[in-house]
Amino acid sequence: MESSNSKNHNGNGIVISQEEKEKRKKKEELWKKQRYICQVKKIDLKTGKNIVVLNEQDAKENDIYAGYRVNLKHKERELVAIVDVSSEMVGKGEIGVFSDVASKLHAETDDLIQIVHMEKPLGIEFIKRKLDGESLTSTQITTIIQELMRNQLSEIELASFISGVYTRGIGEDETIALTEAIVDSGERLELGVGPVADKHCIGGVAGNRTTMVVVPIVAAAGIYIPKSSSRAITSAAGTADSMEVLADVNFNIAELKEITLKAHGAMIWGGGMNIAAADDKLIKIRHPLSLDPRGMLLASILAKKSAVGAKYVAIDIPIGRGAKILDMPKAEALGGDFIHIGKRLGMTIESLITDGSEPVGNGIGCGLECRDVIEVLQGGGPSDLRNKSALLAGRLLELVGKVGEGEGRDVAELMLRNGKAWGKMAEIIELQGGNPKVKADDLPIGQYKHTVTSSRGGKISHIDNKGINKIARIAGAPQDKGAGVFLHRVKGDRVKEGDVLFDIYAESETKLEFALKAVDVWQPVELEKFLLGTMR
Amino acid sequence: MESSNSKNHNGNGIVISQEEKEKRKKKEELWKKQRYICQVKKIDLKTGKNIVVLNEQDAKENDIYAGYRVNLKHKERELVAIVDVSSEMVGKGEIGVFSDVASKLHAETDDLIQIVHMEKPLGIEFIKRKLDGESLTSTQITTIIQELMRNQLSEIELASFISGVYTRGIGEDETIALTEAIVDSGERLELGVGPVADKHCIGGVAGNRTTMVVVPIVAAAGIYIPKSSSRAITSAAGTADSMEVLADVNFNIAELKEITLKAHGAMIWGGGMNIAAADDKLIKIRHPLSLDPRGMLLASILAKKSAVGAKYVAIDIPIGRGAKILDMPKAEALGGDFIHIGKRLGMTIESLITDGSEPVGNGIGCGLECRDVIEVLQGGGPSDLRNKSALLAGRLLELVGKVGEGEGRDVAELMLRNGKAWGKMAEIIELQGGNPKVKADDLPIGQYKHTVTSSRGGKISHIDNKGINKIARIAGAPQDKGAGVFLHRVKGDRVKEGDVLFDIYAESETKLEFALKAVDVWQPVELEKFLLGTMR
Repeated sequence: MESSNSKNHNGNGIVISQEEKEKRKKKEELWKKQRYICQVKKIDLKTGKNIVVLNEQDAKENDIYAGYRVNLKHKERELVAIVDVSSEMVGKGEIGVFSDVASKLHAETDDLIQIVHMEKPLGIEFIKRKLDGESLTSTQITTIIQELMRNQLSEIELASFISGVYTRGIGEDETIALTEAIVDSGERLELGVGPVADKHCIGGVAGNRTTMVVVPIVAAAGIYIPKSSSRAITSAAGTADSMEVLADVNFNIAELKEITLKAHGAMIWGGGMNIAAADDKLIKIRHPLSLDPRGMLLASILAKKSAVGAKYVAIDIPIGRGAKILDMPKAEALGGDFIHIGKRLGMTIESLITDGSEPVGNGIGCGLECRDVIEVLQGGGPSDLRNKSALLAGRLLELVGKVGEGEGRDVAELMLRNGKAWGKMAEIIELQGGNPKVKADDLPIGQYKHTVTSSRGGKISHIDNKGINKIARIAGAPQDKGAGVFLHRVKGDRVKEGDVLFDIYAESETKLEFALKAVDVWQPVELEKFLLGTMR
Repeated sequence: MESSNSKNHNGNGIVISQEEKEKRKKKEELWKKQRYICQVKKIDLKTGKNIVVLNEQDAKENDIYAGYRVNLKHKERELVAIVDVSSEMVGKGEIGVFSDVASKLHAETDDLIQIVHMEKPLGIEFIKRKLDGESLTSTQITTIIQELMRNQLSEIELASFISGVYTRGIGEDETIALTEAIVDSGERLELGVGPVADKHCIGGVAGNRTTMVVVPIVAAAGIYIPKSSSRAITSAAGTADSMEVLADVNFNIAELKEITLKAHGAMIWGGGMNIAAADDKLIKIRHPLSLDPRGMLLASILAKKSAVGAKYVAIDIPIGRGAKILDMPKAEALGGDFIHIGKRLGMTIESLITDGSEPVGNGIGCGLECRDVIEVLQGGGPSDLRNKSALLAGRLLELVGKVGEGEGRDVAELMLRNGKAWGKMAEIIELQGGNPKVKADDLPIGQYKHTVTSSRGGKISHIDNKGINKIARIAGAPQDKGAGVFLHRVKGDRVKEGDVLFDIYAESETKLEFALKAVDVWQPVELEKFLLGTMR
């Protein structure tokens, strides 16, 4: 269904009047003639962007300014690049060409390049309209995403787009158009079989490695679940970082297909494939201000699910103190949007609002989390990780219709007890190049350890996700696979002075020392206070 | 008055709780210890920004990402730089240092540099609050502008700030805080004498070179008018571009003071001085989307006036088809804001709403405009330029109290007739290093000329500012001082087929050819149409 919908947006192009078309054509012809020729000065640096440097005087004379786009021609090759201007890097008649652009154009120092002015990207006008509070058509949104993919929009323009979506919001139709444009910006996984399920967590909870338990259970039940995950940005580990302890996670879309068709499930790093490609570029712009406008968050997540062909999706929305979403009303609104937008995209979605006010599992950090996961898959492990994973897996099985309403969790727990989930995990690990005979005790744990104890007695009132993540990161996670935090307590436990709270593991002494200092700054385990303030 | 006000904002710093302060201090100490040392790989390029390139693996291990800020230390020197990350440009343990940063740090290849994590700039939080619709305090706005000046905010963050101000608006107090922060970001002109007057035009009208007539009249009347102007961005000429035909315009603030104290007036390029420095940086971000949020436009203009000590200011707001502001209600709202905000900044402002629906003067382009100006100053010249300039100069004289209400225009016209205005202009030209004996006929006019005639008879209903500017620019303006358009007609003239409409001048045959093609695209002179559409 998505693909036929998206064709409506894509094929048509922009609707403009005949008069405007003729004016554009005339302008274009004029620009094409108004070109100038420069001599290449190759700069032996990769920038990751299409940037060229023009001489300031040349640029002025040709009415080109920093940030303008030009079309470069060299023999048979053409490329759109963004202009930087300098009076020092290049002399008159020269064009500074970084190695990215040079190799794409097959250009060497002293070659001649032809520079042609370009019209402004159409998206700039649409971004302005969004800032003015207008709703954009699906064609306009598609144009912005297509121009983003062609590197025709600068960071300033994209930041303005995100800000516009953040302040003005986007409606349902706009969200769907954005989702489809993001799907179309990359490749798709087409398994040719079904049903295909997927899961996603909004994030923010330390140690919440349910994916690595849910995928084997669901796959063991015969449901396809080609799970792609991210790496950590600010947390101690992403699923891709942790899975990497057990197996390779770098696979392209053809390899993901092969693994999924064999094992029903896979757990790989999403960044290694080219699905929902525009989303990575948007996230890079959203990151500095942590701008997560609702519609864009929905589109970002649903595009990735849609691109792998998932029709049944469980969304985990953790709430509470220290979680990303603080209260029930906000979680309900978001959960409802997922269901509603998902339906229009042809997906059946269940939003599960979960308690996210403390870490899940004992281990936080790649190796420590894998220990928990293996123990759970082998029938033991921390009960919170075990229960939450069984709940999520069970709901997915019910959603797909594999089991009756209310039977899912029992079936999931059975799979953990009877070894089928672990058997499936071993199969996936082997297909992804890891050791299927791995044991929890084999896993690398940092050789430097410090045990943090309680400075007084009392009841634990809060264990802070951010603080625990921060300490684990400073200890070396997720780069150092053995680094992290092992929690000995959960919220509500009563402790005496000197009781163990948690262990910190690191792979170097220095990192362990820094992590100890971080404990002092973040103080992640809080004991109940009775006196909250005093006035007289 | 401004300077005492602005001290209130600056000295105080940010008000944060004692607890937060201690947490910050602890974090800072932790970061300081968590440094790493890299070996310099000098990259022989100027970028104009403080950017360093870290090895991708190193960066990850140290929890640093592209766009993060780090503090660099090399011997006694320190510098804040923005991080770029690459796996190809630099190897492990290396830091790529562009020549801007290398020279500031006195660092050479193989030197060791210490990298220290930094807290996020405070402004990021305030920008987010603006996007959320909050009003910012003057301290918060000052912080954003100070961090902007220290290059601590990225283009993404600044574009989000501009977008926030654009979509959410800023109130009166915020506008005043922004104006004062912009004034404080640069130097000030302190003449020590008075009264000091100034003028400003919102722009958009081709050939509107009134400044070059108003300044000599006002200065001749004994009023100080240290006028700094901009160069053209998208128009055929800015006042600085045109004045440059007659004299030098590159002066620093000390030189501006000297010229103004001698001649009462000066006409220089604002970019050569360091006044209202933050404004240039903001304009660079506003330019790609042409975002001119009202409060920011007011702050931008009033900061420049305040920084040169102007107490009496005339603001020219041209309106009509083809002008920047389309109708009277918008012009009145803007004009009222100028008066009101100006008053709170200690300025007496008159906003003059003028007809901006067609070009002013005959010449469009630097040399051609100077011809008009000299002719007007010598008692002749095009009547529209003459009348508008006399009106503006007259109002300024009344505003300062030099002449009685309603007498200004007559006095201004007298100054044009009795040669005092031209005498003052000659004095200013001489002080700015030009030839005071210059004649209109001496001025360089492009040797390649084409005369455009009317293809049919009728009444001229519109002469389009944008089209005329575009043709003049393609002919070479403002770089080629002799390039431009000379209008033979004004709106309302009746022409026959074959009658001359305008001449195009260029300094090269190729540019003239392009300009002719541009005439065909933009068709800047419209004849009255009776049939606007037909239906049946």
